[in-house]
Amino acid sequence: MAALGLIVMSNDWNRRHVLSLADFTPSEYDVVLQTANSFREVLSRRTKKVPTLQGQVVTNLFFEPSTRTRSSFELAAKRLSADILNFAPGSSSLTKGETILDTAKTYLAMGTDMMVIRHKEAGVPQAIAQEMDRLGVKVGILNAGDGQHEHPSQALLDLFTITTLLQPEAPRLKLLEGKKIAIVGDILHSRVARSNIWSLTASGAEVHLAGPPTLLPKLFADFVTAPKIGAVVPAATPAPRRLLLHWSLEPALEAADFVMTLRLQRERMTNHLLPTLREYHQQFGITRDRLKLCNPDVRVLHPGPVNRGVEISSDLMDDPQFSLISQQVTSGVAVRMALLFLMGGGKV
Amino acid sequence: MAALGLIVMSNDWNRRHVLSLADFTPSEYDVVLQTANSFREVLSRRTKKVPTLQGQVVTNLFFEPSTRTRSSFELAAKRLSADILNFAPGSSSLTKGETILDTAKTYLAMGTDMMVIRHKEAGVPQAIAQEMDRLGVKVGILNAGDGQHEHPSQALLDLFTITTLLQPEAPRLKLLEGKKIAIVGDILHSRVARSNIWSLTASGAEVHLAGPPTLLPKLFADFVTAPKIGAVVPAATPAPRRLLLHWSLEPALEAADFVMTLRLQRERMTNHLLPTLREYHQQFGITRDRLKLCNPDVRVLHPGPVNRGVEISSDLMDDPQFSLISQQVTSGVAVRMALLFLMGGGKV
Amino acid sequence: MAALGLIVMSNDWNRRHVLSLADFTPSEYDVVLQTANSFREVLSRRTKKVPTLQGQVVTNLFFEPSTRTRSSFELAAKRLSADILNFAPGSSSLTKGETILDTAKTYLAMGTDMMVIRHKEAGVPQAIAQEMDRLGVKVGILNAGDGQHEHPSQALLDLFTITTLLQPEAPRLKLLEGKKIAIVGDILHSRVARSNIWSLTASGAEVHLAGPPTLLPKLFADFVTAPKIGAVVPAATPAPRRLLLHWSLEPALEAADFVMTLRLQRERMTNHLLPTLREYHQQFGITRDRLKLCNPDVRVLHPGPVNRGVEISSDLMDDPQFSLISQQVTSGVAVRMALLFLMGGGKV
Repeated sequence: MAALGLIVMSNDWNRRHVLSLADFTPSEYDVVLQTANSFREVLSRRTKKVPTLQGQVVTNLFFEPSTRTRSSFELAAKRLSADILNFAPGSSSLTKGETILDTAKTYLAMGTDMMVIRHKEAGVPQAIAQEMDRLGVKVGILNAGDGQHEHPSQALLDLFTITTLLQPEAPRLKLLEGKKIAIVGDILHSRVARSNIWSLTASGAEVHLAGPPTLLPKLFADFVTAPKIGAVVPAATPAPRRLLLHWSLEPALEAADFVMTLRLQRERMTNHLLPTLREYHQQFGITRDRLKLCNPDVRVLHPGPVNRGVEISSDLMDDPQFSLISQQVTSGVAVRMALLFLMGGGKV
Repeated sequence: MAALGLIVMSNDWNRRHVLSLADFTPSEYDVVLQTANSFREVLSRRTKKVPTLQGQVVTNLFFEPSTRTRSSFELAAKRLSADILNFAPGSSSLTKGETILDTAKTYLAMGTDMMVIRHKEAGVPQAIAQEMDRLGVKVGILNAGDGQHEHPSQALLDLFTITTLLQPEAPRLKLLEGKKIAIVGDILHSRVARSNIWSLTASGAEVHLAGPPTLLPKLFADFVTAPKIGAVVPAATPAPRRLLLHWSLEPALEAADFVMTLRLQRERMTNHLLPTLREYHQQFGITRDRLKLCNPDVRVLHPGPVNRGVEISSDLMDDPQFSLISQQVTSGVAVRMALLFLMGGGKV
Repeated sequence: MAALGLIVMSNDWNRRHVLSLADFTPSEYDVVLQTANSFREVLSRRTKKVPTLQGQVVTNLFFEPSTRTRSSFELAAKRLSADILNFAPGSSSLTKGETILDTAKTYLAMGTDMMVIRHKEAGVPQAIAQEMDRLGVKVGILNAGDGQHEHPSQALLDLFTITTLLQPEAPRLKLLEGKKIAIVGDILHSRVARSNIWSLTASGAEVHLAGPPTLLPKLFADFVTAPKIGAVVPAATPAPRRLLLHWSLEPALEAADFVMTLRLQRERMTNHLLPTLREYHQQFGITRDRLKLCNPDVRVLHPGPVNRGVEISSDLMDDPQFSLISQQVTSGVAVRMALLFLMGGGKV
């Protein structure tokens, strides 16, 4: 991979699957960050394409509809010259009674090298990965969001966005050590929050969660340390994790370096977990005024799609001085290229 | 672009976006026609592909469903070796409350070089283009149909179909000078008619519009000279435009050189703008018999999809002596390759 | 095609279309099997791609939704480096009143070289092929399933799966001579059964059909020898076809070498053709126990998607000693590459 100016520390990457960040080691984070940074350079060229995965097949199995994340993975795969198959849930064999595992095995038998899986139930990508391992086949599974459990590529692109801002030439996990990061909103139902908690606390940052009581975890320790499906808190990250919880916004914002707002699902209203969008915005919406509580260099992130005027005020979202939202989308392609590249063996 | 035998007159093309034909100059029309003619040669080869846009990303943002136009753009982009992203409205973030502008910005941030946009509301592609220009980003916007406003690539492929028929080696706008062209049907609601009126009158052709009074514009001058969104009748085309209106078919067909029939939306019946399809066909359907009023060399066009036996009789549609419908589809790919090529900078 | 180590016996392949197996000659079967076997070798490489169809366009016209078969054709075409257009019925011109034939002609005019067509009505691919021939255009039509009529690529991949099992280096039709093959289930409504009956009886195998009386053909001779649409029992296959019919499972399984189970459409229950799934499984479900009636080396096939515990017991489906289901999916890509390659002229 000399053409990319990239040295992959292959000893630090032995994963076939990317399912959760719960057991990611600091050096794994750094391999992803550095590989993504090499691809960022590729993406700045006129011809934004490398032949790395030519002849390999990446299948998007999106049982839950998505445009943004699917397009990001699709573009990442295309820029690595892979062939893509898109599984469309609407017109699928699922309506014919086939099990999810059988659908995955069918795509495996066709010759899929990597599967990017999203499902509304937690644990589906893990279950598919376990079955693939049991069968002894060489296919990589990437969790693109499973229910309220995890969304590792989103947390990795958030990490990449922040660390390349701090040190564009050499992003690494430990740049966040001692930083204060607020995550605001519907923590309870958020796979983005859960994955970010793993990576940000592993970095040594201080993570402050803020949201209405109905949208915060009830048994906090369980929420953080025991994801539903098969994740084990690994020996590799024994450092004490610094995580704090607030029922109001202000203590989370105070002197914060980064503020991550979470998307508010409109279903929360019909579920009676929230009164109105307006009231939510008054209590937890991020505005230019509220940012005055933070570190003057504070930046705001949002995984998208944004409800303008709900999670964040419309003018703040468009203000390049504060908003990293557009950079997050751009980072997403580079980080997903890195993940597919590493899962594919990291060779050229 | 020597391999294509193409000399692009780059001084005559300075557009990043193709949104409307209202301000197209005669030399811009000619650049499109000549570039498309070079690509027509490529399409006659066994390997119908050039590496022109390799590594570039063309995103189809079709907020209104379409198969024909989307496939045509997709194929044009593939033959230029671009990568394609298809935005599927059904499974999209729109259902999650994201604004159209934010969707477009998301695809921009992923690395889109050109966006092909269709929307049921007039002005959406223009609004997106304005925002992109305001942001100072280099992305080209192509209007693939906005409400009842314009559909420039359709009018350009119609123009290419007619002018290559008249002069296969050297199609140019002025070949239509003095020709009589009839546009028949639902003029009022037709973006195809509106775009064609700009190109055909610019050529010096005499354009006759015919349709039932309920499907013709009420304030005609407004309809033609003042499109809803931001288009300015340019200084570059000061020639008087020759445009006539008829409430019956015969005067439009008399001695016509070309007859363009428009698709009849079946919704017009439920809106009580028309009595029945049968009655419409009796009054405005194009038949072999009615063509006897025209110039003996007359040819018939239709943008498709056709309601056989409504806008045009079934046997006439299939008669290669009169029908240019199939050539229009073929021209569509060449013209869209030309537009993407020119918007992309016209370099190899 | 030296790179593939493949010698195509071009004198034995003169088809532009693959619509039915009714008139396939033994040497045509063998050309497909040997070509597919060469592609199987390609698929075992790291870069599973050949430039054979570069610049050619394969259009999937799936008027009936399908994921499995469409993905298989899509991957086959991609591995031959073709460009793919996918016609999506949901967002199509069909809802705008266009005829199927006009849709096909539109894709032809865009520059399609091969069309892969699925439709819920028998005879649609044949009708399109006839029209294309009448127009004198060079486009190949492949029937990917038409109603209850035929599904030739499925039967060819079944044949490939079985014959490569018997002789991996040199699969050919006559390897099945004298073998006993049971086809079990809803024979009456199955295009898979019908196509398999043509190929398997042509091989000299003895074919036993078993199913509930309501799911077996009433006029058997008509079912087998006179498909609804245009197929002619050809002079090329005059050998007597050995075909037997059973209303119970046991006589079909006795000493069978291969058991093909068919998918049970759940609609059959609402149509009152079957009492319950449980009862069906008790009478016609394939289980490990029932396989004891067969030849000890027996293998089981299923076209997928499988209703686990209905057509076949769940544990048997996953048992690599008996189940060929996964191999069938893999064979599908190789066989479809072979068909597209041969229809495209078989040249490199």
